[in-house]
Parts: sequence; C-alpha cells; structure tokens
Amino acid sequence: MKSEDKLDLAILYSEVPSAAAGVFTTNRIKSAPVILSQRHLSKRQAQAIVVNSGCANACVGEQGLVDALEMARLVAAKLDILPEDVLVASTGVIGIPLPMTQIRAGIERIRLHQRGGHDFARAIMTTDTKPKEIAAEVDMGGVKFTIAGVAKGAGMIHPDLATMLCFIATDALVNVEFLQPALQKAVNTSLNMVSIDGETSPSDCVFLLANGLAGNEMISFDNSEAFQEALNEVCVYLAKSIARDGEGATKLIEVTVEGATKHAEARQAARAIASSPLVKAALHGSDPNWGRIVAALGRSGTEIIEDKLDVYLNDTCVMKQGNPTSFSKEEMRTALAIANNVLIRVCLNLGDGTATAWGCDLSEEYVRINSAYTT
Amino acid sequence: MKSEDKLDLAILYSEVPSAAAGVFTTNRIKSAPVILSQRHLSKRQAQAIVVNSGCANACVGEQGLVDALEMARLVAAKLDILPEDVLVASTGVIGIPLPMTQIRAGIERIRLHQRGGHDFARAIMTTDTKPKEIAAEVDMGGVKFTIAGVAKGAGMIHPDLATMLCFIATDALVNVEFLQPALQKAVNTSLNMVSIDGETSPSDCVFLLANGLAGNEMISFDNSEAFQEALNEVCVYLAKSIARDGEGATKLIEVTVEGATKHAEARQAARAIASSPLVKAALHGSDPNWGRIVAALGRSGTEIIEDKLDVYLNDTCVMKQGNPTSFSKEEMRTALAIANNVLIRVCLNLGDGTATAWGCDLSEEYVRINSAYTT
Repeated sequence: MKSEDKLDLAILYSEVPSAAAGVFTTNRIKSAPVILSQRHLSKRQAQAIVVNSGCANACVGEQGLVDALEMARLVAAKLDILPEDVLVASTGVIGIPLPMTQIRAGIERIRLHQRGGHDFARAIMTTDTKPKEIAAEVDMGGVKFTIAGVAKGAGMIHPDLATMLCFIATDALVNVEFLQPALQKAVNTSLNMVSIDGETSPSDCVFLLANGLAGNEMISFDNSEAFQEALNEVCVYLAKSIARDGEGATKLIEVTVEGATKHAEARQAARAIASSPLVKAALHGSDPNWGRIVAALGRSGTEIIEDKLDVYLNDTCVMKQGNPTSFSKEEMRTALAIANNVLIRVCLNLGDGTATAWGCDLSEEYVRINSAYTT
Repeated sequence: MKSEDKLDLAILYSEVPSAAAGVFTTNRIKSAPVILSQRHLSKRQAQAIVVNSGCANACVGEQGLVDALEMARLVAAKLDILPEDVLVASTGVIGIPLPMTQIRAGIERIRLHQRGGHDFARAIMTTDTKPKEIAAEVDMGGVKFTIAGVAKGAGMIHPDLATMLCFIATDALVNVEFLQPALQKAVNTSLNMVSIDGETSPSDCVFLLANGLAGNEMISFDNSEAFQEALNEVCVYLAKSIARDGEGATKLIEVTVEGATKHAEARQAARAIASSPLVKAALHGSDPNWGRIVAALGRSGTEIIEDKLDVYLNDTCVMKQGNPTSFSKEEMRTALAIANNVLIRVCLNLGDGTATAWGCDLSEEYVRINSAYTT
C-alpha cells in the first residue's frame, strides 16, 4: 500500500463494524488525528483505520482537524462506511500541514486485500529497519480466534519524534465495555514500558478493533483470561520489537525490578534505568559499569535500602547487599560485546512489587539520525 | 595541587572557622562523602573542604564511610583543625573503594597557598575542557567582600556520572541561619536548572563557606539583597559554564519559559525542554525543528493552551498563537550553525510564572565519551 512518493499511507478495514478501544499519548500537545480519533472512539465502535507517515498533522492550527476529518471522510466514502467509524493516525514532522493533494490521491489509489497484514506493517515503516508484526491464535472452547498486531517504532522519513503507532485487530467477539480496560491493561505492562529516549510524541496511539467474526462466546470481564493473555503477549512482542529497533540501537535492554514496596515503585525504577542515557551509552560500549544502573535507580525516587540491594547483569551478580562483587569485568565485557539482549535485574528486597521495562543502547547513530535537519 | 598520578586531590582551607551551608544530590543513593558532609554540616560550621576525583567512594559498603572519615581526619591533622570541620567530596567511578594509599600520600603532599583558587579550579577538572571559576566583589556600606566559586561539571577521568561539584567561599560575615536558605535559593535558579543528560549522581554537592574576615556588617534575612544577588550571579555563571562544557557539547542552550500559571510549572517546562534528547540533537545539527520544542513542552505536564502558545528561537518567532510562522528555515539553519549560544523562549501566555534552564546540544561525542569502558 506504499504510494510512490515519500508519503506512506495505509488503511485497515474490518468487513463489519468492530468494537474499538484506544490508548493515546499523554503529551499535552495532541495532534489533530489524536483529537479526532478520541472523538470517534467515544462510541466504542470503528470499522477502519487510516494512517499516514511523513507528516504528523500537529501544531498547524485549525487546519489540522479540517484535514484529519477529510481523511476520515475520504476513507469512509471509499469503503461505504460512516466517517465516524474511521480512526485516523498520522506521524512525521510537526508544524507543517498535511499534503492533502497527495493524501487524496493516495487514498484513492489504495487497493484493499484480505492478506494485507504484512503490507500494512511495511507501509507504516519509515526508518524502522524491520516491520513489527505478530499474530496470536487462541482456542476458546473449540472456537479459534486470532489477535494480530502491527507497530511502527522510533524512526521516520525525516527523523523526528519517536512516535509509536500500534494497530491491533482481532476476529474475537469481545464485550465493548471490556475492550478498553483490556487494552489499557496490556499496554501498561508493555508499550508503556518502552523507552527509546524518554520522549513522548503528540501522535502516539494504540488502537484495538474486535469484529466478532470468529463466533466465539462473548469475551467479557469474567471469562477473559485466554484473551487477555494473548493480547498481553502481542503487546509485549511489539514493545520489544520497538525497543530493539530504536533509532541507532544495537541491543535490546530488558530491565526487571523486583522486591519493591509497591508495583508503582518497581515500574518507576525499571523505566528510569531503561531510559538512562548513561546506562544506555555504557551498554553500547559493552561496559559493565553497574554504578550507572544504581545511580539511575537512585534518581528514580523509588524507596531503596542500599545494603539490601542486589543487582544482576545478564545473570551475573554485580552488587550483593549493597556491596560490589568480584566478577570478572573482562569476561563480562566480552559477553556484552556479542549480546543482542542485555538483562538487568535489580532486587530491592523490600516487598512484592515487580515490573519490567525495555529500552535500547544509545549509539552515535542515534545522534546522527536525530541531528539531520528537516528543512 | 594535581598529584602526579591519575588521582586528583584538592583542599580548600579557611584561616578561621566559617559559617557553612550545603546543597546535596536528591539521588536516593548517596556517596559516603555526601553522608559524612551532611553530618558535619549539621553544626553549620566548617573550615576546610577536601575533594578528590577518579573515585566516587559510593556503593562500596561500610568501607565508604571509614575512608571518607579518614580523609577528613588526615586533612584535619594536616591543618590542625577539627575533623568535624572538614567537608569531603569525591567524584568518579562508583563501586570501587578509594585508593587510600594514594589519598594519604596526596593529602600529605599538598601545599596550601593564598592565591590557590585557580589551581583549585584546575585540580577538580577531569574531562572538563575548561576550569570553571568566578569571583564577584560586593561593596556593602563601604566594606568590600568577595564571593568566589569553582565548579566541576560533566566530565571525569573515567567518564562516568555527570557529577556536579561546586565550592563557593566568601570572606563576608553572614548569619549562619541565613546562609543555608541563601544558598538554596541561589542553587534553585541556577545549578538546579542545568541539565546535561537528565541524570543526577550520588555525589552531587554544592558547598558555601563564609568566614567573615571582610569585617562587614553581619548579613542576614533583612539586609541580604546585595549578597544574595552576587551569590545568584556566581551560581548562574557556574551553571552556564557547566552546561557549555557538557560532555561533547558544542553549544550552550538557554531555555526561558514565560507566562506559566505558576513558577513551578515554568520550571518544569524549561527543564524538560533543556533536557530533551531530540531538541538537543536537533540543535547539534543546527536544525530549527521547533516541533520538538513543543513536543517536549507537552511532555513536561505543564498546563498549555495550544492556541495561546508563542515560541521563539534566537529571537525569531517560529510559532505564534499555536500556528507555525513563515520564517526562513535556511537562514535560521545558517545562524544556528555559527551560534555558540541558542536561546529558546516559550511564552505560554497564561500567567506570571517564569523560569530559565540551561543545557547543551547532544553530539556523537557524548556517546563516544560515555560508552568508553571503565574496566
């Protein structure tokens, strides 16, 4: 579905109206598509999603909503559905208006097909180096349904905000009241635990459409275990794929914090470590400099008792009860140099709170990508 | 006062006991010297400061306090003062014990002299490219006093945490109850508004000693205007010097946020913009990509009404009432390429809250410095 010029455009379409849920950026500046899609989601139904990259349609004044609405109308007309059933997502440079001539031509040109999931995943790629897609199949009392997700991560035509866009669709029949909390729960422990550079964009969004064509028993609060588990899996997979493919990244960093007094404290600590520029730069250089992990932990504000603290780097204990251990730095350096995944585990030994966050190393390439000029 | 090996050591000594104040890291992990100096400052008096770089004396278990205390005792013996009147500061790699043999020899070797301020500023440099020092002279009713400050910023022997150490001394006579709030006030609008990479270290500290030898009328809450102003100036100068000399930095970035509903909101916004990796990378590439400024502002959580928002880049209005202006991107790019200072001004137009923060651009060099391995 890629158009021939620099603008990328894709449409996701469900044959029937779907129960729909969305999670949006917490940035106080919201793009016009985010505002429009939030409005359209108020009735918890959607039948199509249209997404473009290259231009975020953010910070362009009133023209933003006018253009986002026209995108929804054009797609609705093409598919013979209601404009209110179309969700819109845009990603790219902030502060320039959408090139509507190209958008109009692009929407007209797109041809839909049933096995277009992979094409969709490729269409929303920009400087992403790999498409991010996954499908999970669930058997529920002999009836099978699928949850499929695609995401775009940290990379754009004009490298700019690390916008995260994520689209999940399922043929499961799901109670519309349950869909939003289910998505929020899955996102909280996955996509909300990814940090490439600590930034959020005005365009970040995650959509979930459930059209019910699988014919399963309706999933709701009391029988959701298998569905929730599969949805979590899809979101964690996409989150890890985004982190691994962060701009300039060479390593996936997984940070688990255990034994915090509360889950919220574990979460805060895991995110602080995964997004620390000094931790990220050290791991890029295969440097087992665990002092930076401890310093980032300390900065997070999480409750710590230093002499209860254990820290592990790829299963090697580097700090035990607040004291350095005598691990071989040279061996660790060699192991880190060839590792694609780095595991950091911090045991606070204070309570039951546990959380995992994902990030990537910080490379010179990140700076090169993000200092190339847009003008 | 640099010793011949990699360990750097310096002593600051006042001929008489001084009123003393200190501001310390907010990191939950504190180095042993920070813990010891906080304890010594409880009586608001000090006569000497000893500082070493190369080793932070943090996260080394009980040995940390033992070694910090020995440093204080050795300096006290050398100067014939009380160990409790010695403040200790250390900066460097975390998790390795102080090399006490070198420390002992270094303290013995140091010779004090009256015009040693510049040497002191140089001794605490590590990968800092320039010493950071300033003196302000104040005339108070015909009596002159001086406030002199030195700082070390983001750079170490083994590049590690961006530890900030700052030592200020004055011969003014200052009420000991007033000294701490005066320092806190000065630091809040200066050194606490610097961000190199958003990190804090377990070793950050600012000390202020006032020994009263100038013979001025005692400065206290009701007659402090000239003193406070000079102290603020000293702290702002040191803050800007630290930002300008951030690891790998080529530009000083000054961010002023005006018109916030509260001062605290302006502060939060200015700090978020000054520490945004995407803003910093864009300015490194001389890219007038103001969308990133607005996105960082939005992420800060500060209250914003988008169509009241004005943004200036080096005095050029790039966003007016939420709309992009038609400035020449090419001219701006050329101007940014030769600028050593970049001014970002954000007018929220909601209230009276104003704040300024300082940072630097993000370069490939920052990553290179911080991914070199310590082992």
